[in-house]
Amino acid sequence: MSFTINDLTIGQSASFTKTVSETDVYLFAGISGDLNPAHVNQVASEQTQFKGRIAHGILGAAFISTVVGMYLPGPGTIYIGQELRFRRPIHIGDTVTATGTVTEINVEKNRAKLETTITNQDGVVVTTGVATVMPPTAE
Amino acid sequence: MSFTINDLTIGQSASFTKTVSETDVYLFAGISGDLNPAHVNQVASEQTQFKGRIAHGILGAAFISTVVGMYLPGPGTIYIGQELRFRRPIHIGDTVTATGTVTEINVEKNRAKLETTITNQDGVVVTTGVATVMPPTAE
Amino acid sequence: MSFTINDLTIGQSASFTKTVSETDVYLFAGISGDLNPAHVNQVASEQTQFKGRIAHGILGAAFISTVVGMYLPGPGTIYIGQELRFRRPIHIGDTVTATGTVTEINVEKNRAKLETTITNQDGVVVTTGVATVMPPTAE
Amino acid sequence: MSFTINDLTIGQSASFTKTVSETDVYLFAGISGDLNPAHVNQVASEQTQFKGRIAHGILGAAFISTVVGMYLPGPGTIYIGQELRFRRPIHIGDTVTATGTVTEINVEKNRAKLETTITNQDGVVVTTGVATVMPPTAE
Repeated sequence: MSFTINDLTIGQSASFTKTVSETDVYLFAGISGDLNPAHVNQVASEQTQFKGRIAHGILGAAFISTVVGMYLPGPGTIYIGQELRFRRPIHIGDTVTATGTVTEINVEKNRAKLETTITNQDGVVVTTGVATVMPPTAE
Repeated sequence: MSFTINDLTIGQSASFTKTVSETDVYLFAGISGDLNPAHVNQVASEQTQFKGRIAHGILGAAFISTVVGMYLPGPGTIYIGQELRFRRPIHIGDTVTATGTVTEINVEKNRAKLETTITNQDGVVVTTGVATVMPPTAE
Repeated sequence: MSFTINDLTIGQSASFTKTVSETDVYLFAGISGDLNPAHVNQVASEQTQFKGRIAHGILGAAFISTVVGMYLPGPGTIYIGQELRFRRPIHIGDTVTATGTVTEINVEKNRAKLETTITNQDGVVVTTGVATVMPPTAE
Repeated sequence: MSFTINDLTIGQSASFTKTVSETDVYLFAGISGDLNPAHVNQVASEQTQFKGRIAHGILGAAFISTVVGMYLPGPGTIYIGQELRFRRPIHIGDTVTATGTVTEINVEKNRAKLETTITNQDGVVVTTGVATVMPPTAE
């Protein structure tokens, strides 16, 4: 259920969608130690431009990890790097879709790049970026 | 406990350290949906070059989020972007330190860049990168 | 607080009730790896016949495990088997009651069967089934 | 990434593997309310025939839910029923593989049956059973 470098094609894509719950944000805060009021203080966060608690940008990036590690290229992939640009907030309750699309394939080095995008339920792009991966050498 | 753009100085740094538990990795797998065998299958992961289960690269990045959101610049910061290079694995049980060091300050645009590094208990650099942030405008 | 095979009587019953939270469903998704959109994607699940996110059928069954392992026959019980029929969905926020009622007692083999039923706050039967157990030999 | 009833073939199978952590067992205990000493009391459980804490049988069944809901037939499947026989304990730290294999296909009723088996890292069959499912009508 994985793709080797030879299986990949430019433009190939995979997605993962999840509604981000308060539980997700709170567990992520606890794991990371990032208990910034933007994430766990409803009163303070309502007074910011975001009008309420938002998910950690890196929590969104976790869904990119899921696309890369579970689907494209999938299990056995070595995750080399990730560039992230947090463009819009992810609010608690948003349903976000992380998508990876293959943009570069280097067979010799066994490396590929994927354009990575997270959109919300309204089609708004919340995060953009690029993943660099080494696909597994056997399926 | 936050720094505005005017408070920051080049070379200023802050760190956060945590021993990465199996619980951290398993909760992160559950939140993200990334249940790749590298993270949750001891038998399969022992047969990889990493010789056992490792943390998600993005879980390491979560500690950078903690440095940025909690300490430097701290609460009120807007996290704009993050570049990550996963250089070595983080194993379950490793004690990792995420450090952010200010490298660029743009007062006009209210933006700063931090070099972000994660090292383990042996001083091995496991992750490198750059964070881009907007510090809070009031402390 | 346990019942041995000799303590059991036909028709004896015990129940456990819990309101199923979003947290329950999300943690269960993470533990199991079952992040099916029916459970964690509000947008997609609203378009199904169930009109929103539902709990995993097996999460309901976990409450039957609680009845058997905690109350009837209780601690020390060996859980041998369970038949389950998922008749109606359990929605996030539903208050469900799992009930086990003794229907067969085999003293010689130290085995008993319980009819197991889960109902929701409206009295709708959501799950039916049969549990087979070995009660503890000492209370 | 799903299979309709017409896509299924007898003998088709899918698996999911996870090392069962103490965290999994403890979270499952908390969600379900089944805090039977067999699962959360190391001292008492060491004195049983199982020589230590074991996972809930239904926690193993959760991995069958993952096979059915994520892979075969996959997202959109309606889970109708499950028969389970708990044959051997799953210990904390065991790496278990849940496998579903299609054994019956009823196109007219849109129902299929899968033989469901859980084995541990030593190839020991810990749980057997049968799942009944309604595959999604569109992929």
